Amino acid sequence: MQRYFLAENYTPKEQYEVTGEPYHHMVRVMRMNTGQQVYLAFQNQLSIIAEISAITDASVILKEIEKEQQEKELPISITIASGYPKGDKLDLVVQKGTELGAAGFIGFPAKTSVVKWDAKKLAKKQQRLEKIAQEAAEQSHRQVTPIVELLATEKEFLEKVATYDVIVVAYEESAKQGEHAQLARILQKVEKGTRLLAIFGPEGGLAPQEIETLVAMNGQLCGLGPRILRAETAPFYLLSAASYQLELM
Amino acid sequence: MQRYFLAENYTPKEQYEVTGEPYHHMVRVMRMNTGQQVYLAFQNQLSIIAEISAITDASVILKEIEKEQQEKELPISITIASGYPKGDKLDLVVQKGTELGAAGFIGFPAKTSVVKWDAKKLAKKQQRLEKIAQEAAEQSHRQVTPIVELLATEKEFLEKVATYDVIVVAYEESAKQGEHAQLARILQKVEKGTRLLAIFGPEGGLAPQEIETLVAMNGQLCGLGPRILRAETAPFYLLSAASYQLELM
Repeated sequence: MQRYFLAENYTPKEQYEVTGEPYHHMVRVMRMNTGQQVYLAFQNQLSIIAEISAITDASVILKEIEKEQQEKELPISITIASGYPKGDKLDLVVQKGTELGAAGFIGFPAKTSVVKWDAKKLAKKQQRLEKIAQEAAEQSHRQVTPIVELLATEKEFLEKVATYDVIVVAYEESAKQGEHAQLARILQKVEKGTRLLAIFGPEGGLAPQEIETLVAMNGQLCGLGPRILRAETAPFYLLSAASYQLELM
Repeated sequence: MQRYFLAENYTPKEQYEVTGEPYHHMVRVMRMNTGQQVYLAFQNQLSIIAEISAITDASVILKEIEKEQQEKELPISITIASGYPKGDKLDLVVQKGTELGAAGFIGFPAKTSVVKWDAKKLAKKQQRLEKIAQEAAEQSHRQVTPIVELLATEKEFLEKVATYDVIVVAYEESAKQGEHAQLARILQKVEKGTRLLAIFGPEGGLAPQEIETLVAMNGQLCGLGPRILRAETAPFYLLSAASYQLELM
């Protein structure tokens, strides 16, 4: 749908009259007719969807259909995969990660994960995390609630990994070696709608063998700046950087 | 390799003598021996790799091996000012904010702050936060430990505000109105060494009168993306965005 910027502030009106350049574009360039809809964007950063009710020699008359719903979701879908960390750290990852826009969370047993959870414990934990995600989604005005999946085996995890468009592996050694630009390169070229999986190790990091497997599956190793971030902090950095690149710039 | 912060400036010396708390940690906790290496971080943002040459009853003697090469600090100095939030949320702000590169933290009584802390309580709280900052700085390989200051009055706070080069005010209404680009505009033009203060409200946000005062002091209102972030989450977004813009791009 076409979008027109008007040089006035929005105030609720029976009808809106468009003249000048947008009139010209609607009528002469787009050859619009009554009944067609457009976005009208006002100076005070409000937009409406409006329908053309009449066209005269110098103006288009439109009626408001509804306010444009502001887009609250990241333009790409980011799933955070965390190797099971100790204690309740996943609670924090899910709560803050939901506020910061994650589309989903995956927990998986990494080689250095200390905790061992059986199926019953995993199911209970997943329920708890789903509740945290739901509450954080409401509180932060999300339009969707992130999906939470706690996996029992590495095999299940690698099957999941294979389903994503872009695979980012947060790797401390990249930071130590001064590799800084890879994440920016990825975020600058992802297309709207891309399904990105970002993988984070537990406290002990990802093992060399895990790194090797993920790289063989097209995982891209990324540093997250020169400081060493804890297992639960690194996802916040990645989500914030993605929002900054894709929503603020 | 273990990292220790010393309360002195770096000057080139034949040998370095470590006493007190770091001595205790090296000898009693880590049971280090001669020949082992550690990082010594000095007050003037210089760090060296040093090797233990002798251990006495009250001190460890070390020799410099080399300067630490990599720059671990953000190119601009960012101080996070939080209107006192409820409970222990400042603990999380200081711990994660230190990992993410903050140069300092200021707590201040905002109009909607629910908690009221007297001088004694503030002093105790500050001590606790300083310890959290110190530990997070060591753990994340920072070269400086962030400064923590808990202020008792709005007047003290506004006097502080006036001393910064750039003042960013995180403002939820900016996000609601779809204002997205201001933070990116600021981060793209700050010069190395700039002292930036980023101000965040408590749970109830900043009051209109506070916003007005801060804008009159050249505070720039910034949205942090379209989602509503909690009081303790917003600083993580800002610090991550700054690192992404200034260290990764």
